Amino acid sequence: MAEAVRHEKTARQLRMLSDALDSGRLGPVRRLVNTLAPAEIGNLLESLPPGKREVVWGLVDPDDDGEVLVHVGDEVRESLLAAMDPDEIVAAVEDLDIDDLADLVEDLPDTVIDEVLKSMDRENRERLEQVLSYPEDTAGRLMNPDVVTVRADVNVDVILRYLRLRGELPDHTDHLYVVSRRHQYLGRVPLAALVTHDGSTPINRLIDDEQPAIDVDASDQEVARRFSDHDWVSAPVVDDNNILLGRITIDDVVDIIREQAEHQALGAAGLDEDEDLFSPVWRAMRRRLVWLFVNLCTAFIAANVVGQFEGTIDKLVALAVLMPMVAGLGGNAGTQVLALMVRGLALGQVSSSNVMVLLWKELRVALLNGLLMGAVLGLIVLAWFHNIGLSVVIFAALTCNLVLAASAGVLIPITLRRLGFDPALASGIFLTAITDSMGFFSFLGLATLVLLR
Amino acid sequence: MAEAVRHEKTARQLRMLSDALDSGRLGPVRRLVNTLAPAEIGNLLESLPPGKREVVWGLVDPDDDGEVLVHVGDEVRESLLAAMDPDEIVAAVEDLDIDDLADLVEDLPDTVIDEVLKSMDRENRERLEQVLSYPEDTAGRLMNPDVVTVRADVNVDVILRYLRLRGELPDHTDHLYVVSRRHQYLGRVPLAALVTHDGSTPINRLIDDEQPAIDVDASDQEVARRFSDHDWVSAPVVDDNNILLGRITIDDVVDIIREQAEHQALGAAGLDEDEDLFSPVWRAMRRRLVWLFVNLCTAFIAANVVGQFEGTIDKLVALAVLMPMVAGLGGNAGTQVLALMVRGLALGQVSSSNVMVLLWKELRVALLNGLLMGAVLGLIVLAWFHNIGLSVVIFAALTCNLVLAASAGVLIPITLRRLGFDPALASGIFLTAITDSMGFFSFLGLATLVLLR
Repeated sequence: MAEAVRHEKTARQLRMLSDALDSGRLGPVRRLVNTLAPAEIGNLLESLPPGKREVVWGLVDPDDDGEVLVHVGDEVRESLLAAMDPDEIVAAVEDLDIDDLADLVEDLPDTVIDEVLKSMDRENRERLEQVLSYPEDTAGRLMNPDVVTVRADVNVDVILRYLRLRGELPDHTDHLYVVSRRHQYLGRVPLAALVTHDGSTPINRLIDDEQPAIDVDASDQEVARRFSDHDWVSAPVVDDNNILLGRITIDDVVDIIREQAEHQALGAAGLDEDEDLFSPVWRAMRRRLVWLFVNLCTAFIAANVVGQFEGTIDKLVALAVLMPMVAGLGGNAGTQVLALMVRGLALGQVSSSNVMVLLWKELRVALLNGLLMGAVLGLIVLAWFHNIGLSVVIFAALTCNLVLAASAGVLIPITLRRLGFDPALASGIFLTAITDSMGFFSFLGLATLVLLR
Repeated sequence: MAEAVRHEKTARQLRMLSDALDSGRLGPVRRLVNTLAPAEIGNLLESLPPGKREVVWGLVDPDDDGEVLVHVGDEVRESLLAAMDPDEIVAAVEDLDIDDLADLVEDLPDTVIDEVLKSMDRENRERLEQVLSYPEDTAGRLMNPDVVTVRADVNVDVILRYLRLRGELPDHTDHLYVVSRRHQYLGRVPLAALVTHDGSTPINRLIDDEQPAIDVDASDQEVARRFSDHDWVSAPVVDDNNILLGRITIDDVVDIIREQAEHQALGAAGLDEDEDLFSPVWRAMRRRLVWLFVNLCTAFIAANVVGQFEGTIDKLVALAVLMPMVAGLGGNAGTQVLALMVRGLALGQVSSSNVMVLLWKELRVALLNGLLMGAVLGLIVLAWFHNIGLSVVIFAALTCNLVLAASAGVLIPITLRRLGFDPALASGIFLTAITDSMGFFSFLGLATLVLLR
């Protein structure tokens, strides 16, 4: 309900905007758009079809352009950049934080990248190059090298004087980092400690050195897990020699968590999380075809299984009526087990040490559900076709297929993981390939044995 | 790959722990467990089967018990609480933050709640009662009433003196909130501003009053969206009269985002995000049965459609072999559209103002994919069954079903949303009900018309 209310509000805004655009009154649109935060503008642009999207993009305050570009998916970003002059792009991105700029830079035309680099001072250019030297999806790529460091051998008053001279702090600075003369990371001092302790307090009494820093090679998933396990707002990034390289902040981590969730939800349907709602037809079509062809192959295997039993079906057409139910319910039951397993694997809760316990639990659940659902379906079939043999066959086949589905639901994702694939993406296709084929096989095979003796 | 590495690390820890538990050497287990953060211990407990779980829970440092309880799902929490004496529970939870305590309190036995309330001082008891007076999943329930407030008519030095007297600040305090004499929210002052400005700077020069506060009735989804749109670390919560009630911090928001993603992933398979991996068999079984029965009903409808064409299948058994392919590919194509729509709805990007544009795009994509996949399938069928009529029928039926699947993929979630249901949870069942039934209908119906004239 609350979700619906929020949706209503956004929907109302969208409708107002859409009406104003249709009528060509751009003044109100400009006013509405520029009351929004850059992330909200990004979301709005994603929800506009091409044509309207370019019009609204032209109305965004140029000061927000860079931040908006950071907050949209790759495909939409491409369409926005296509509508800008090189000069506009340079102006939009040159004031971004290093980590945001690093995120954008690969989508920019080469000539624009050169211009941006030229417009930066040497220190920032070197920082950008450093960040870009780390692989995507690692801590090195997420960090911002702009960090406030202090020494341990001073007191609070000295630090406060230094900060007042320095002026503004980088966004989300909740700690200062204490480093050695060689810039090795020693620990962190909370701003909260600086404002609650006397000026004469030595810094080394306020250092929190219990939190290990993040390794520059850590994956973004590892970074997200550590932030959420430890409730961090920011964390230092170091290299192998414990030299402080930069700082990761919670806003980037929130983006990772959101993207990961989208990646799993869309990836399970063979889509990319950067897919534009309004991407061009030929592009959307090409992308989806790959997945449909994989599914065509698995459907073909299942059809082949049915093909082996043409003779049986020919003698009892009711089998053709009922066989999709056995296959479909197996797929549903397997999907439930799969969903639990995929989450367990993502959270690191499932591994070889407990998978057999899980399998045993799921087999028992499946057996009980299979017997119960099988009995219900058997009774329905009895009432429908008045054929007790058919009723027994579907009871047995459904029980078999549910038990098999549970095994597949447990074993497929853990096997994919062991082979180095993402279980969230490919498990579903394998699962239905098995539950379809084996559902048809168990039902038609048993029918051949029992009914056509 | 990086994900696999992290998984390997966790898996190794789990295996070590599991081996140590098996051999009964509890010393190393205790040491390993107590190097972990409470959230990590919670994750570990979730990954242990009953029996081992209770043993490890008994080894956790009692000081961490409360935080661990906050970080596990409802079902696991229940199993942990069942292993504790009332005194232990009171000791574990009495030092928790008010917002965490409010989150736990409903899972506690009544006698324990009374004890906990008695052990609290009056101020905290009143705060807890206030938080509990707001509905679950609203800002009021998420907030912590422990907030540092200041007046606008003083300078930085006065504030610093006050903070030094006050001592420690609540976790994640990045701003002080400025209130009027009547405790109305006026704006916020960043700690960063306090440490970078001279002591003589008046506070009213440092106030940021541009960010509107969060309404105490706002849904948790709305709270999460605003935090991530505005990159907040903390935000003030006010009532209708703009009276400051408390503060929400980013760590709770990260939990909301994670839970929402899990809710959608598991909910789509008819599961609860609080489901324990190792929940008792009868409980897991009962919970899954509901969903399987719903699916049985939709499968039954599809079977009935096939039943109408028994005569047709009887004359050409190849139809039984091929009909699951038409239904299945329709389901796959529809699932892709659905995944995009569900995300678009969750982000507020899809609404009545653009749904027709989207539908039109998806119809064109589906038509092109349908023609292409249909042609491929038609050729396969021609090679397999040497029946040109059958080949034409499956071509036309697949094209129809893909176009229908796209319409269903767009219209089902938006209709569910309009009716007040969560489109992420129920859309899939309706979609496959339609793609199965209509896949069978279009294929068998066309076959009846074309092949049996």
